[in-house]
Amino acid sequence: MSRVFRHWLLDLDGVVYVGDAPLPGAPEAVETLRRRGCRVRFLTNDPLPTRAAAAARLERYGIPAEAKDMVTSGWATARTLRGRGLERVAVIGSDGLREEIAAAGLALVSDDSAEALVVGCDDGIGYADLRLGVRLLHRGAAFVATNADAVFPTPEGPAPATGAIVAALRYASGREAEVIGKPSPAMFEAALEGAPREAAVMVGDTPATDIAGARRAGIAAVLVAADGASPGLPPELRPDRVVRGLAELLADG
Amino acid sequence: MSRVFRHWLLDLDGVVYVGDAPLPGAPEAVETLRRRGCRVRFLTNDPLPTRAAAAARLERYGIPAEAKDMVTSGWATARTLRGRGLERVAVIGSDGLREEIAAAGLALVSDDSAEALVVGCDDGIGYADLRLGVRLLHRGAAFVATNADAVFPTPEGPAPATGAIVAALRYASGREAEVIGKPSPAMFEAALEGAPREAAVMVGDTPATDIAGARRAGIAAVLVAADGASPGLPPELRPDRVVRGLAELLADG
Repeated sequence: MSRVFRHWLLDLDGVVYVGDAPLPGAPEAVETLRRRGCRVRFLTNDPLPTRAAAAARLERYGIPAEAKDMVTSGWATARTLRGRGLERVAVIGSDGLREEIAAAGLALVSDDSAEALVVGCDDGIGYADLRLGVRLLHRGAAFVATNADAVFPTPEGPAPATGAIVAALRYASGREAEVIGKPSPAMFEAALEGAPREAAVMVGDTPATDIAGARRAGIAAVLVAADGASPGLPPELRPDRVVRGLAELLADG
Repeated sequence: MSRVFRHWLLDLDGVVYVGDAPLPGAPEAVETLRRRGCRVRFLTNDPLPTRAAAAARLERYGIPAEAKDMVTSGWATARTLRGRGLERVAVIGSDGLREEIAAAGLALVSDDSAEALVVGCDDGIGYADLRLGVRLLHRGAAFVATNADAVFPTPEGPAPATGAIVAALRYASGREAEVIGKPSPAMFEAALEGAPREAAVMVGDTPATDIAGARRAGIAAVLVAADGASPGLPPELRPDRVVRGLAELLADG
């Protein structure tokens, strides 16, 4: 497929790595793509790390990466807000998310002067954050979420992700959040960097975010599934191809 | 109306007091009802205080009250769980809620042995609570909420209430909570104590909880509204009468 597609968008968790280790064949597959002249960008809805931290994690797994190769939902959110001319932002989320927002030139505030409320996830989030968020939403601040994931996997089982925090704020405020991460177009626009859509392909393991997002962005979509089989999915979540992993995808050239 | 109804169920916030003061005429109205031989019970969806603490607050406002006169959503929840033979309960909520659960003879646990997860509200709730909750719900624990209120009023504006915490857990677990507080029948059963329904009346200021609950319980319903006017409500939320306050309700005997 590297003969057809020059721009590869790879989901991280479940495609490049799982837990704290790279997936078998993933580092070699990325190396092959780059050797063949393809451009590789890594997409993650995880709003916690900065792009630099996400790249450093790939380096630890033997995959050379720089911040510019990473498309995190936090960075895409900062980029989107800046593009709209917003200046003052309150953040419910991680230090990494706050760093990306500040790096985009936005002022971090935690008072009523906030023009937008950005919601991510972090294990430090507490009731005081929800209370600030509800107050800002009632005052009319823009409501932006890095992603809408319900849970993320941990060794102890599924843990609540950004979508859960957003759900609490939505219920208490009656407001709907704009979601920037996959499957939203903003995330794919940031990843495509103007590349022609017919030359781009998204590889992911989650139909609702990876495949739906690729469909909406008008690019090809490959689903990674452990058994290599496509479950019965509705049309908007159906991939162009199903593979067991990145290595299988490149075997045909 | 005290000639017709012998069992009075009074909502607290907005009917008996607002903020940190009794409403004009409320202490006198409660005294009149009791002098005429009516039984008065106070209902609140606030899951934070114990019944004893809720009674002490009324005493401070000049309204004699004992724990047995108070029907809090936390106490009704404890009573309901015990009635079902449950023994081990995890609580996300206040110390007051925990005290009511323990006083009902249930064991408070915070590990996978919990048969039920009880959700209330408290400013100490944090991400670790949501994480524990999601784990228990994925393991199949019963999902019980003291109430579903979205916000409660504070001098700084609306603050997220129990319903917001429940919404986060619902989104992350895909499970629906059983709600015990108003308008659920469990709350009214606890308040009626077996009294004949035709002799009971509920007085409240919130159609969605107070009036809807009274309708479902098959008892008369009075709405307290500042302007004494009934807004355009659907049939299931329509009160039998609208008054400006408790005093007006007793003027006719």
